[in-house]
Amino acid sequence: MAQPTIKLNSGHAMPQIGFGLWKVDNATCADTVYNAIKAGYRLFDGACDYGNEKEAGEGVARAIKDGLVKREDLFLVSKLWNSFHDGERVEPICKRQLADWGIDYFDLYIVHFPVALKYVDPSVRYPPGWTVDGKNDVQQSSASIQETWTAMESLVNKGYAKSIGISNFQGSLIIDLLRYAKIRPATLQIEHHPYLVQPTLLKLAEAEGIAVTAYSSFGPQSFLELKFKSAEDAPLLFDHPTIVEVAKKHNKTPAQVLLRWATQRGLAVIPKSNNPERLKQNLAITDFDIAQADLDAISGLDRNLRFNNPTDYLGTLHIFA
Amino acid sequence: MAQPTIKLNSGHAMPQIGFGLWKVDNATCADTVYNAIKAGYRLFDGACDYGNEKEAGEGVARAIKDGLVKREDLFLVSKLWNSFHDGERVEPICKRQLADWGIDYFDLYIVHFPVALKYVDPSVRYPPGWTVDGKNDVQQSSASIQETWTAMESLVNKGYAKSIGISNFQGSLIIDLLRYAKIRPATLQIEHHPYLVQPTLLKLAEAEGIAVTAYSSFGPQSFLELKFKSAEDAPLLFDHPTIVEVAKKHNKTPAQVLLRWATQRGLAVIPKSNNPERLKQNLAITDFDIAQADLDAISGLDRNLRFNNPTDYLGTLHIFA
Repeated sequence: MAQPTIKLNSGHAMPQIGFGLWKVDNATCADTVYNAIKAGYRLFDGACDYGNEKEAGEGVARAIKDGLVKREDLFLVSKLWNSFHDGERVEPICKRQLADWGIDYFDLYIVHFPVALKYVDPSVRYPPGWTVDGKNDVQQSSASIQETWTAMESLVNKGYAKSIGISNFQGSLIIDLLRYAKIRPATLQIEHHPYLVQPTLLKLAEAEGIAVTAYSSFGPQSFLELKFKSAEDAPLLFDHPTIVEVAKKHNKTPAQVLLRWATQRGLAVIPKSNNPERLKQNLAITDFDIAQADLDAISGLDRNLRFNNPTDYLGTLHIFA
Repeated sequence: MAQPTIKLNSGHAMPQIGFGLWKVDNATCADTVYNAIKAGYRLFDGACDYGNEKEAGEGVARAIKDGLVKREDLFLVSKLWNSFHDGERVEPICKRQLADWGIDYFDLYIVHFPVALKYVDPSVRYPPGWTVDGKNDVQQSSASIQETWTAMESLVNKGYAKSIGISNFQGSLIIDLLRYAKIRPATLQIEHHPYLVQPTLLKLAEAEGIAVTAYSSFGPQSFLELKFKSAEDAPLLFDHPTIVEVAKKHNKTPAQVLLRWATQRGLAVIPKSNNPERLKQNLAITDFDIAQADLDAISGLDRNLRFNNPTDYLGTLHIFA
């Protein structure tokens, strides 16, 4: 079964439906990736910060060894963590991440946040997280986004990444980056669900030829296990009458409707599931189309409600202000 | 009557209540400025784009000539227009603006928008506005904010501006600017009224020691003459029961309550009025304090409703996405 792809401005094709590795346990990660490949997933969205790149790489290696796929059939994504924004830190950490995965290039390598933190040596703590001491001390570095992006571009020139992208960037910062970028970001990864639609940001990305990947497509659901109060206070999208009604109409699950709402509007999605059945369901969203009025009704649930915001969990780094 | 001031990070003191020159007619501008000085105003907030700097300067010159004030009693503010973001354009246009005002330094010179447009020669059209042809053709320049800010810094070093600031910047772009700024922005000027409170942006500015100036303190009122649909659709703040009730409590006008709500929370304001009576009223907001519960109730009217957005009037330049 051929999966739909999105043609990136880098010339490469990216699967529109991928598997997100955020919050996938180390203990189960290799099996999860292996089984996801078996189920048809070709894109895996990882990151230094997820702390499971070695295990993800083991799953990939086993799938290749067993003849399920070849490396070139896969689209492997990782992200530059905040602690490695200083220009001279970018290539070494990317190479370390490649080594963890056991591969020699990423299909897409993304600036995880527009946040530059003081360097933490990987031998001291890896992944380093948000603080310099592993506790409460958030210390910024003075590496500008231009410095970081220039180093990202050299990853492409050296063959370590086929495409490069950004995540969690606001409009004016994207516009500024485009002024000096020699290689334009191929993708923008953002929190995107019916409670946080960000129509103007989507318009900007479309106008600039940047593909958008939605994360946390299920909204509050993704943040319950982190005990985010904002997520606990929001009505679950899986139970929302608007979503449930559209799901019934198509004999699909609410999760499938949420993913289809995004892909039908041109976005890529990267759901995660540890459940083999849901893993398959999340991929099976290309055989139905939601009516425009229903797409609009779902978009109408927008309440500009963001769950993944450093302001909320660190009390600082107000990148969405 | 001494006006309250805000101590800027540049070391200079800025009057907390000023007079905004946006939409002040050329025909009346000199008299308006003269009368405002007579009424006690010391800060005038101008801009290339307002197209009335010569006339504002005439009012200032007359007031100085008549002995109402000395130059050093005044705090004169102007702004760099989008068409002059290229590094080499900043000083020449600032000098032209100084010549228009008939002064040799600005107390504060501000990047008007984080928007870089193609240069328009002042001999061709001045002020140039948003388009390259005076009609519909919006063309961006590739000058980064860093390039522009570096040129702004040299204005301070050369004595053309005592302080420099920014306007209409989002959080992540401010954070990026602070990474390379040798001179930090002294002020951030933003649209701010009870329908657009932007609490996180205020938190960021406070944490970074940047003073905030609120523009369009009266909300939709400021945009009715421009026939902005978003403003016509919003209930007027002057009629809003919450505002009216607080006004009655203090025997003040709704306009005075809206200004006091801002200044009591530490912001500077720059209201405009062509009416001599209201001109005085807008300045007379230091003799009462709104109770915390009422301040909170007014802040509670927030609906993240922005009126001054290029996306709405140009369909592009999505700087608030």
